[in-house]
Amino acid sequence: MDGLIITPLKQIHHPKGDVLHGMKASDQGYAGFGEAYFSTVNKGQVKGWKKHTKMTMNIVVPMGAVKLVFFDKREKASSFDSFYTVTLSTDNYMRVTIPPNIWVAFQGQAEHNLLLNLASIEHTPDEAESIDLESIHYDW
Amino acid sequence: MDGLIITPLKQIHHPKGDVLHGMKASDQGYAGFGEAYFSTVNKGQVKGWKKHTKMTMNIVVPMGAVKLVFFDKREKASSFDSFYTVTLSTDNYMRVTIPPNIWVAFQGQAEHNLLLNLASIEHTPDEAESIDLESIHYDW
Repeated sequence: MDGLIITPLKQIHHPKGDVLHGMKASDQGYAGFGEAYFSTVNKGQVKGWKKHTKMTMNIVVPMGAVKLVFFDKREKASSFDSFYTVTLSTDNYMRVTIPPNIWVAFQGQAEHNLLLNLASIEHTPDEAESIDLESIHYDW
Repeated sequence: MDGLIITPLKQIHHPKGDVLHGMKASDQGYAGFGEAYFSTVNKGQVKGWKKHTKMTMNIVVPMGAVKLVFFDKREKASSFDSFYTVTLSTDNYMRVTIPPNIWVAFQGQAEHNLLLNLASIEHTPDEAESIDLESIHYDW
């Protein structure tokens, strides 16, 4: 999907507990720091659809597994009207950079699922749009 | 402890899964964004001691419970030679801002414990010091 960046991340294993990379300011996809927040999503539940008109999101899943679905309604994008799906987890440990104006929904896959969003700007209602899950048909 | 900031954070509960605040660029304690990384720490295990000479750390525990112990060897600080202890969890959901030059160690309290560090600069070996756990006596 145009502008979406998938970046494999390092996990450093240790008997006492691991270190999991998230993002560095020098990494590709970094678009400034506005806010960091977590979402949990229960097994089988879907949160979405949401779209930001200004925020670039950088999403990492450090616990559990989360299926992310993106839907592109940017008329000038080559990926217009198409979906992109990726499941993030510690077994498939990657960061997804999501440019503005892409619809996002996500589903919990494991018992405990945690998603970190490193957002380029602070969340404000005026640049966030939410629509019902049924508004965009996807076969979850 | 001088310069340490404890900030209660909001959790927004939802049947599908919660939203947990982490940090905003406008929050007290924000000292720039260099890197975000996770540490897990197994139950009963202690990671430490570590000290950063330049990095300000902002620590949040979005899963499990982590006991953090700080030891102040800054000779000019009023808290010189003293310990400060706090246990972070989703039940005691707060952010701890740790200025440079404070020794830190932490212990896992629950089955699965996850700590996010929002670091003001990227991690480099030249500003990070590690010493053995036994070097600073604390009765864990």
